[in-house]
Amino acid sequence: MVENGGQIKVAEPETDMTLSEDDLIATLFAPLAGPGGHGLKDDAATVGVDPGDELVVTVDALVAGVHFFVDDPANLVGLKALAANLSDLAAKAAQPSGFLLTLALPIGTPEAWLKAFAAGLAETASAHGCPLLGGDTVRTPGPLTLSITAFGTVAQGAMLPRTGARSGDRLYVSGTIGDAALGLALRLGHDGLGAALATGLDPAAQAHLRQRYLCPEPRLPLGPALRACAHAGMDVSDGFVGDLRKLLRVSGAGGLVDLDRIPLSTAAEHAVALHHDAFRTAVTGGDDYELLVSVPPETADRFERLAAAAGVRVTTIGEVTADPGHVTFTRAGQAVPFATGSFQHF
Amino acid sequence: MVENGGQIKVAEPETDMTLSEDDLIATLFAPLAGPGGHGLKDDAATVGVDPGDELVVTVDALVAGVHFFVDDPANLVGLKALAANLSDLAAKAAQPSGFLLTLALPIGTPEAWLKAFAAGLAETASAHGCPLLGGDTVRTPGPLTLSITAFGTVAQGAMLPRTGARSGDRLYVSGTIGDAALGLALRLGHDGLGAALATGLDPAAQAHLRQRYLCPEPRLPLGPALRACAHAGMDVSDGFVGDLRKLLRVSGAGGLVDLDRIPLSTAAEHAVALHHDAFRTAVTGGDDYELLVSVPPETADRFERLAAAAGVRVTTIGEVTADPGHVTFTRAGQAVPFATGSFQHF
Repeated sequence: MVENGGQIKVAEPETDMTLSEDDLIATLFAPLAGPGGHGLKDDAATVGVDPGDELVVTVDALVAGVHFFVDDPANLVGLKALAANLSDLAAKAAQPSGFLLTLALPIGTPEAWLKAFAAGLAETASAHGCPLLGGDTVRTPGPLTLSITAFGTVAQGAMLPRTGARSGDRLYVSGTIGDAALGLALRLGHDGLGAALATGLDPAAQAHLRQRYLCPEPRLPLGPALRACAHAGMDVSDGFVGDLRKLLRVSGAGGLVDLDRIPLSTAAEHAVALHHDAFRTAVTGGDDYELLVSVPPETADRFERLAAAAGVRVTTIGEVTADPGHVTFTRAGQAVPFATGSFQHF
Repeated sequence: MVENGGQIKVAEPETDMTLSEDDLIATLFAPLAGPGGHGLKDDAATVGVDPGDELVVTVDALVAGVHFFVDDPANLVGLKALAANLSDLAAKAAQPSGFLLTLALPIGTPEAWLKAFAAGLAETASAHGCPLLGGDTVRTPGPLTLSITAFGTVAQGAMLPRTGARSGDRLYVSGTIGDAALGLALRLGHDGLGAALATGLDPAAQAHLRQRYLCPEPRLPLGPALRACAHAGMDVSDGFVGDLRKLLRVSGAGGLVDLDRIPLSTAAEHAVALHHDAFRTAVTGGDDYELLVSVPPETADRFERLAAAAGVRVTTIGEVTADPGHVTFTRAGQAVPFATGSFQHF
């Protein structure tokens, strides 16, 4: 089903790719196919679901120059595109089972780019047991655009919802927050923060932040802890502050968050010490791909034990309150006012 | 999960849409959501699969100006985008259960366009019991680009494959072939064929062909006939000749096709009488969204009875032979040579 779209073409741009559509599928993508992909030779793929389970599905679209840099290493574009979807599955306590890929390719997409992209996808797919099942490849006069639909399984009715946060729950985040946003600031390098980090941070810290921007690690090992202990979860991909607000809003709850407890990497701590915008960027910038989890107090200890057993750091950063729409953030004991989507000031 | 992509934006184009992303989802798309869509408020959707069934998944990407005309009525763009995916499910003998939508929207996409697009989607989704489950909405500096992932169910192992055609099978097509390609020629109007059709066909015939290009009818009612009687199937979307070759190639078989038996609508028959290119266009042009089915002789009668009971015309147009790679097309008893993908001459 990775074919040319099942459509007559209104206009077919010329291409200087040396691989034909069929070659591209056969040489680059068929090797990634799992059993349900039927060698990418059919109109459709199959996804088996064990009795008592149901499927969790999620999709992301990415546009070159909007969601990633045109000159990002192609293997990391592939890695991150799939990892971002796997992060959504992780947040839903689902076990990955496969993915579909659509690629809209501009004129002149180099074969080397596609090979590296496929290699990055393959690495991520293999690391997480999530094979390619099919897709669609088309031409576009615009920028390279891709979408990934990822499938996972959960026991029937056991998808961890966004809407389940309850007053009194503890709020946890996995890993550390803000590295990716600071890595992006370094990558962009055109504002005061980016320049300060580029000159003030040691090379290892810079490399850490850049790596975290390019190579998110889906928190799939937290699955057992989430399934056993959590009320609600989502992945933090659009910025911690905004994403927390979303989770609480759809849960009909409020929250109290101690920003001093936000887990930062050593590199991010150095960044915060270097520049007054770094903390704001860390907690409002995107691309963390960490999990935000609401856990009732009675299972909090068990949640922490299971997370530790899974090798994933989790940190409690606040609690859920009964006051819908009111989320209070404090730093050094002071309330920090925010605009809807981002900090007003610190 | 219809949200802004879970990604920090490298660059965010300005927009003059009056609807925000959240408004767009809440007002236009949430009304289309089925139970597994969780009101489009979560990171992911759920798809239930009954015990003994498995899921069939298919995805298509469409680019404005490549796969549809920028000035096509937006409701029909929505209708056709979903119908094309439903046609893939129909070809696999699957029962639709829901779909995901990604939309990459250029600067200045009018709210009215989006409303009409959503209305067309809604109409098709409702007609075929295939609710929206989720998606993703992003901005693009390029043309409007969308992808639809559609889900259906079949009994475990019962997806009708492309690869199952066997020597001695009868080859059937549903409906009539070529209307959409002739409708597109009319729409383009810039070659001899388009001009001849525009002047030589009566208005009702022109309207029929244009309608068939814009509004494909997924042959889902054929499901019971396919499940009970067929060896292989695919949908004819890239042109009958090329698609038949594909099915026979992946089945490791050959074929003998009598082009005089290709079912044509009255409008297409008039077109064939009018212009020497019309028949070639009809059997090699795309967008039919009819089904091509390989049926063993022993179930052929039953297949025809079940198809008649479903109200779908089916026509046997040839048979499968044991000679892999050799597909012979005849017209008026003469072999018609073809290039790989299209007619060399008639």
